[in-house]
Amino acid sequence: MIKARVTVTLKNGVLDPQGKAIEGALSSLGFQDVGHVRQGKVFDIELEGTDRAAAEANLKDMCDRLLANTVIENYTIALD
Amino acid sequence: MIKARVTVTLKNGVLDPQGKAIEGALSSLGFQDVGHVRQGKVFDIELEGTDRAAAEANLKDMCDRLLANTVIENYTIALD
Repeated sequence: MIKARVTVTLKNGVLDPQGKAIEGALSSLGFQDVGHVRQGKVFDIELEGTDRAAAEANLKDMCDRLLANTVIENYTIALD
Repeated sequence: MIKARVTVTLKNGVLDPQGKAIEGALSSLGFQDVGHVRQGKVFDIELEGTDRAAAEANLKDMCDRLLANTVIENYTIALD
């Protein structure tokens, strides 16, 4: 079995209201040295089999078709 | 400036309906070799200053107070 972590983040220039809200909340809590905050998603996925190249190709396909909106999001794939 | 990535994931044993939904959706799309899927969150945070130890302590505090629900979630902090 192969374990993979897919991280999906907003592309630069795409507005991130959730990140802005977190910035404001951290500032309210007294964290004064916080600059920009951006929020993304992470998926921990288990795959059957041991073929790492096939797994990576499969994961790329999953990202393009379901996990990420590639118009506004980037993704990275890391295999364990 | 220090850039940090905070990853928040559900603890083992905590139900993850969103992950289950993704499992089902991937299966419907024809990805047959997908096992468990768990979803988490990632925060990319910029901090003023250059003191990495202070930044890490600050980030830990942010996680405990705002970014993670430590009853059901784990977090990891990675500095760039």
